Amino acid sequence: MPRALPSASDLAERLLRGDRAALSRCITYSESLREDHAALARGVLERIWPFTGKSVRLGISGIPGAGKSTFIEAWGMRRIAQGKRVAVLAIDPSSEVSGGSLLGDKTRMEELSNHPAAFVRPSPTSGTLGGITLRTREAIALCEAAGYDEILVETVGVGQSETAVQHVTDALLVLLLPRAGDELQGLKRGIVEAADVLAVHKADGGMETEARHTREAYRQAIALRPHGRWLTPVVLASSISPEGHLATSEALDRFFAHQHATGDFHARRTRQAVRWMEEAAKELILAEFRASNAVQTARESQLNALTTAQTTPLDAARALLNAFRERSE
Amino acid sequence: MPRALPSASDLAERLLRGDRAALSRCITYSESLREDHAALARGVLERIWPFTGKSVRLGISGIPGAGKSTFIEAWGMRRIAQGKRVAVLAIDPSSEVSGGSLLGDKTRMEELSNHPAAFVRPSPTSGTLGGITLRTREAIALCEAAGYDEILVETVGVGQSETAVQHVTDALLVLLLPRAGDELQGLKRGIVEAADVLAVHKADGGMETEARHTREAYRQAIALRPHGRWLTPVVLASSISPEGHLATSEALDRFFAHQHATGDFHARRTRQAVRWMEEAAKELILAEFRASNAVQTARESQLNALTTAQTTPLDAARALLNAFRERSE
Repeated sequence: MPRALPSASDLAERLLRGDRAALSRCITYSESLREDHAALARGVLERIWPFTGKSVRLGISGIPGAGKSTFIEAWGMRRIAQGKRVAVLAIDPSSEVSGGSLLGDKTRMEELSNHPAAFVRPSPTSGTLGGITLRTREAIALCEAAGYDEILVETVGVGQSETAVQHVTDALLVLLLPRAGDELQGLKRGIVEAADVLAVHKADGGMETEARHTREAYRQAIALRPHGRWLTPVVLASSISPEGHLATSEALDRFFAHQHATGDFHARRTRQAVRWMEEAAKELILAEFRASNAVQTARESQLNALTTAQTTPLDAARALLNAFRERSE
Repeated sequence: MPRALPSASDLAERLLRGDRAALSRCITYSESLREDHAALARGVLERIWPFTGKSVRLGISGIPGAGKSTFIEAWGMRRIAQGKRVAVLAIDPSSEVSGGSLLGDKTRMEELSNHPAAFVRPSPTSGTLGGITLRTREAIALCEAAGYDEILVETVGVGQSETAVQHVTDALLVLLLPRAGDELQGLKRGIVEAADVLAVHKADGGMETEARHTREAYRQAIALRPHGRWLTPVVLASSISPEGHLATSEALDRFFAHQHATGDFHARRTRQAVRWMEEAAKELILAEFRASNAVQTARESQLNALTTAQTTPLDAARALLNAFRERSE
């Protein structure tokens, strides 16, 4: 017999006391495909809702090799030294099959992971991108309820996840590499436009000149195409020199001051709440669709028809919709 | 007054005659968010269905800078020289905001784009990844009906799109760069596992030795973790030497021979048809949800409640679901 699940009120209480094991389990339930787990996660989220929203949510993005883990480790340890509690979450839609890189990841963020004031959570490894941002929103709320002051959301890869992260965070920091070439980083303009601060990382160990060239190239490119009322600053960053995060930190402080002064901070969070509602509603309706007996019966016969080429995918899809419409559950 | 839309039967007829303008318009309708366009695309797809399925569908993927466009241009021209008609489609989920790279793309595949035996279609620039694969499936079917023998589906970036492309193609070719370093390409294992053939591209101009090292490294990595009954070959490729695609071409021929001999070719297409049905059904049910008057009314009041912090996104989502359940449309 499977172990009985804890109650939502018990979990919520432990979470609000800052219990890391409870936080871990809540995130696991939220990511689970089991309906009883999902219901439990919803129960916890409802209870902890009044205690969320007080953290700073910072998205950190960049191409593979830009040094995101190194940056986050150094950044997080510095915040902890300032008395903060830091949570790190990762969005990684590319790990659909197995996660991790071919030759195995180095142990990531070892010091931060082992610090009592930090909580580092590897990425969910399945689901659609929409699903992943929903799960990330929920994980953020859970971390906030557990008392973390700064939530760092790391996105891996150069795909859609980098633009998705702006919808779950208060600021998006994009890490660049010191390369002032023509193929500039292999970055898409979408992500540069989404960035609130750009940092040329690894501006150390002899790469300082190259890094400054990169900074100038991006500054010029951004000046040519400003968007919105915030002119994205481009700064240099190093995670191995003591003052290496100073410029990034100052740029983010300026950004947040700007956001609060203009009301954009609140407006962005409200937009995100609306988006969250839309995505959660989509998930609920699709769950209802999948769970419908009428749809499941129709699916069986359509699968047969598809396998024997007696129907087309589009006709089969319409048959499922009709079954859903006419269900009497 | 907007121009009247053509009829589905007229469009389908022109498409089947190989009319490129009709093909272009059909793909545009399929990508459109307007319901009348979508309905027209569905009408065309139903009519042309019996004339689809006869092409070879080849996915081509790789990190930014791997030379995908150069490869496809050379590959496509060679196919055309062999008497084939070639269509190129692109999946690019990263271009959510604006598409294109910051400093502007070079004109891509200029020779191929201008050849009468080729059809090159840039990527859709919006929508979810699920939506993009649906649109790509439809574009493939439309190209097949228009008489193209080989459909090349290019994926850009290193995100989810690379694993998604395997669900719409008969074979997935992944281009690597000659780099035998530790950070190996910044590729995720998912994509290497999804690849049916791996080609170390740009194995020319002095990079031959490095390319051979990369080939050996991947061969060893793959031998250590075989999956399925096909051992993914790793070959060298160059798009600037006359014989530079020979090894890739032979590897793909062997793959297709294997797929036909084992029945895996048919099985893969059937699996894809089932997935297509599931995705199309999802799209239909969500369209019904969005179009519902009851849901739209509920959304208005929930938006107000969210903006004034009188509800939570999850409660608001549940209110939309309830409105949908109780609708009497």
